[in-house]
Amino acid sequence: MAFYAAPLEGLLERLSRLPGIGPKSAQRIAFHLLSVPKEEALSLARAIVDLKEKVHYCKVCFNITEGEICGVCADERRDRSTICVVEEPRDVLAVERTGVFAGLYHVLGGAISPIDGVGPEELRIRELVNRVRDGGVGEIVVATNPNAEGEATAIYLANLLKPLGIKVSRIASGLPVGGDLEYADEVTLGRAMEGRREF
Amino acid sequence: MAFYAAPLEGLLERLSRLPGIGPKSAQRIAFHLLSVPKEEALSLARAIVDLKEKVHYCKVCFNITEGEICGVCADERRDRSTICVVEEPRDVLAVERTGVFAGLYHVLGGAISPIDGVGPEELRIRELVNRVRDGGVGEIVVATNPNAEGEATAIYLANLLKPLGIKVSRIASGLPVGGDLEYADEVTLGRAMEGRREF
Repeated sequence: MAFYAAPLEGLLERLSRLPGIGPKSAQRIAFHLLSVPKEEALSLARAIVDLKEKVHYCKVCFNITEGEICGVCADERRDRSTICVVEEPRDVLAVERTGVFAGLYHVLGGAISPIDGVGPEELRIRELVNRVRDGGVGEIVVATNPNAEGEATAIYLANLLKPLGIKVSRIASGLPVGGDLEYADEVTLGRAMEGRREF
Repeated sequence: MAFYAAPLEGLLERLSRLPGIGPKSAQRIAFHLLSVPKEEALSLARAIVDLKEKVHYCKVCFNITEGEICGVCADERRDRSTICVVEEPRDVLAVERTGVFAGLYHVLGGAISPIDGVGPEELRIRELVNRVRDGGVGEIVVATNPNAEGEATAIYLANLLKPLGIKVSRIASGLPVGGDLEYADEVTLGRAMEGRREF
């Protein structure tokens, strides 16, 4: 019985560790890399090295950045009195894409999840409290995910931050725009009813 | 509007070029690589470099190998009078896994597909003919895929090789083992009927 050459086996093993990549996808990707020009495959390897060597977390908000401080924190035009709290760096981009938020961010690095062993100490909550204590913050918008962990984190933050004398708000839950009442789950529809606004 | 740091954008762009990886999967993989220890991400990069620097095609059968000649061609115990013709290197492993074939291989590098601009010249058919002409080959088993391109390639090879005075056979089409007659498509079931064998 012949097996794959060792370098191919090694790549397959490492590709299989990536999220969403099973053995079949790993094989497809590995054979693709085998067939493309050497320069193209090496540019992917270099991009991975670059990512790990050049991308860091912003010292202020823990968003990802190439410098010490991220583009949002460094931007003088942003409203420094409002901080939007998100779970992950990718959530920053999601909020930025809406174009309706002009404040700063704070990336927690996850959500409180006792099952996964993630308590408040594992998240960058202390750093958030310090930012509030440093002054100048009027409102914290909690934009953690609208699931069990995100909601628990939001409630925890509200209890922690409100006593500091600032406004703490939560992004709205409700029907997605373009959605269909008929297909909405009852929890979402219930939230949409509770969160109704007068014309 | 803030965007991702350049090294992250670069990696996303390169990941999206891989087969089966869309923008969402690319994002998931990139953020995964961002969060894992540096050594783990770099080992993936090194595995890609290794693949391109160490893996070559076998000079005889065009299977992938680390040396000049692949493990199958170098194995003195293999039956050198039978050559199994497959489309891609991964097909070699698929046949090897069955454990029922003890001959050598020949990897074409694809199948004849006029729509994709792949004619017989683009495949390693000339090299196969040369192997037959060199003598010692009694049978060619054509194991290209049982689809339109694979069948066309099989018929092309049969017409080309039979005049050289050797046996040319085709792997059987039929119902998969463990399959269900009820759910078989009519073409497969038709093939299974045509290819019936006496007990």
